Amino acid sequence: MDNPPTLMIPGPTPVPEQVLLASAQPPISHRSTDFRTLMAEITAHLKWLHQTQHDVLILASSGTGAMEAGMINFLSPGDRVLVGCNGKFGDRWADLCQQFGLETERITVPWGQALAPKDFQQHLATEHQQPIKAVIITHSETSTGVLNDLEAIAREVKAHSQALIIVDAVTSLGICPVPMDEWGLDVVVSASQKGYRMPPGLGFVAVSPRAWQAYGSARFPRFYLDLGKSQKDAVANTTPFTPPVNLFFALQASLQMMRSEGLATMFAHQQCLMHATRTALRALNLPLFVPNDALASPAVTAIQPDAVDPESLRFQLQQHGVIIAAGQDHMRGQLIRIGHLGYICRRDILTTVAALEAALQDLEYPFHLGVGIQAVQHSFSQHSAGPSDLP
Amino acid sequence: MDNPPTLMIPGPTPVPEQVLLASAQPPISHRSTDFRTLMAEITAHLKWLHQTQHDVLILASSGTGAMEAGMINFLSPGDRVLVGCNGKFGDRWADLCQQFGLETERITVPWGQALAPKDFQQHLATEHQQPIKAVIITHSETSTGVLNDLEAIAREVKAHSQALIIVDAVTSLGICPVPMDEWGLDVVVSASQKGYRMPPGLGFVAVSPRAWQAYGSARFPRFYLDLGKSQKDAVANTTPFTPPVNLFFALQASLQMMRSEGLATMFAHQQCLMHATRTALRALNLPLFVPNDALASPAVTAIQPDAVDPESLRFQLQQHGVIIAAGQDHMRGQLIRIGHLGYICRRDILTTVAALEAALQDLEYPFHLGVGIQAVQHSFSQHSAGPSDLP
Repeated sequence: MDNPPTLMIPGPTPVPEQVLLASAQPPISHRSTDFRTLMAEITAHLKWLHQTQHDVLILASSGTGAMEAGMINFLSPGDRVLVGCNGKFGDRWADLCQQFGLETERITVPWGQALAPKDFQQHLATEHQQPIKAVIITHSETSTGVLNDLEAIAREVKAHSQALIIVDAVTSLGICPVPMDEWGLDVVVSASQKGYRMPPGLGFVAVSPRAWQAYGSARFPRFYLDLGKSQKDAVANTTPFTPPVNLFFALQASLQMMRSEGLATMFAHQQCLMHATRTALRALNLPLFVPNDALASPAVTAIQPDAVDPESLRFQLQQHGVIIAAGQDHMRGQLIRIGHLGYICRRDILTTVAALEAALQDLEYPFHLGVGIQAVQHSFSQHSAGPSDLP
Repeated sequence: MDNPPTLMIPGPTPVPEQVLLASAQPPISHRSTDFRTLMAEITAHLKWLHQTQHDVLILASSGTGAMEAGMINFLSPGDRVLVGCNGKFGDRWADLCQQFGLETERITVPWGQALAPKDFQQHLATEHQQPIKAVIITHSETSTGVLNDLEAIAREVKAHSQALIIVDAVTSLGICPVPMDEWGLDVVVSASQKGYRMPPGLGFVAVSPRAWQAYGSARFPRFYLDLGKSQKDAVANTTPFTPPVNLFFALQASLQMMRSEGLATMFAHQQCLMHATRTALRALNLPLFVPNDALASPAVTAIQPDAVDPESLRFQLQQHGVIIAAGQDHMRGQLIRIGHLGYICRRDILTTVAALEAALQDLEYPFHLGVGIQAVQHSFSQHSAGPSDLP
């Protein structure tokens, strides 16, 4: 038997068969009526997903390409930016900004902790000749499993500055609420291989009217990632450069699935998966890297095992058919991360916890076989299953 | 019946079923042994396709993203560049260079004509304080159907300057010879939806050691399109950012097909398709935009009809199930373009010419029904069918 393993990493993530098959249709011309109809439908769905009336633009890129587009289109060399750093992806934003010659200031807290809204208030309230032009927040920090309190941080930023709020929603969009308009977010960046339940290859940037005003005076050179070009063509339901039409087919199929479920159902499903995972890990005495449930990302759960070597556990789990992720950067070898986003259902959590128990047994970790699975069952029994809990 | 139309445009192009199905496999982790094995195989095939010993790097982008990467990684603001302009894509390169603040000089010839090697010699031989840093050539000009004499131009550039030779091989790679090392090309840019016989979404940049030397002192800010990052990770058969793994599956399948055919067979197949198309158009008295066979691109054939309205003909052809492309920019409404690249076989040329005759008849164009098809048959009878002529 050569069954594909269960992919429990924070991207690429499992994709529904109907989405994969949609992507395998013969390509169409991107200058055709069929393409314009497809793009009009996708754009309407994307606005729904972002809870916005504003533009949501699609790029042929990874999430990092969308990050770069979300920065270079609205800022100029020498601008001051403030970046929240509590993990690898916050750090990546700061690196990106520095690479482009921005005056990059960081609010840094240790990995595994959440950014504090009051730190932003204090930083922004400090007198300075040149105001901060943008505040950049990673909503769900994929490297640690922390969900930053984006709503509260955005509120502080708006109360104390005119700065644009640029949000990395790569592992929060479609996973938990990111109501762009209600929270006053200016730029929201995401990528297809996460909450979108589709393969990697598309990046997304949502843009507020305030951000478009900044676009007018932004002075970084740009061509491929020029969102003005995208916006101009998006009005006519087309793209400035050849789009990955097969990934657009996949996107259409996955967004149709999501709309038939509804945002509330999708988010409740993610809460259920996260809760079951965390409950099982606690029952197995595997220390959660983010112990406080209120700060936990519904996309990914990290553990920092002490009584078993993390990399041995990850490797052993793979022998039982489940792929999880290693720690990143300086936490490599210390953390393991379980992704529970994409097309993941309750059955996958059961499978993962059963495989985890088998792997722990192989490694002679002291525990009672079955306590993890029992915890998952109890957790599920407290959450009624909705349409997102299929298949 | 709702059969998909025959896609005879210069991208996106038809894709073999086995390549589409390969792309519909469940995603895998890009940090796994399976992925590294996949990438090692793909990289070896890409070097074969480029006829090079040097690096061929893969980006999640359209061809334009690869163009931008092929420029910003090797040049600095204020550098002098010389761009060959005889169509929309040459113009796009010049726009891109100007957008980034390069001193952009153009060798411009009218659309439909080929760039003359001696013009490059003259331009480069002219005394100037600051030498030209790069010469940019579009090999097959997709907007007109001209194949520029890249070999001769490259020879002139090397004889009269130290400039890097940057080549847009978007509609020539896999279609006709582009022996990177033999011709001394420094940067070769291509995209997946053309000669690669796969869906859009991947860009490719091949880089010579001389170009890597220039990379060291190039000063454009770069992050997502930083080829140094790609190269560093490619050594370990991985990528700096999440790659579109499903498109990598497709790429593997299409490159395997190509290798089983061989370059000579693939190129002969394209010559056969081009010859049959041109012969049929001549028989139908539809004026070829590039009358000289020696200057014709084996990827795309443009016609400039005088006795029938081009857009009416294009629309009418669509009613008969064949999609061809319009003219671009100022040639819109004057030209129509037939793409014969990607997974196109002899049968598709017959279908296209039969549909063209039916459309011409609808438009009361004066001709003898059947003369186009007969010309195709005669043309095919002079070319023995090889493995690329399947299915």
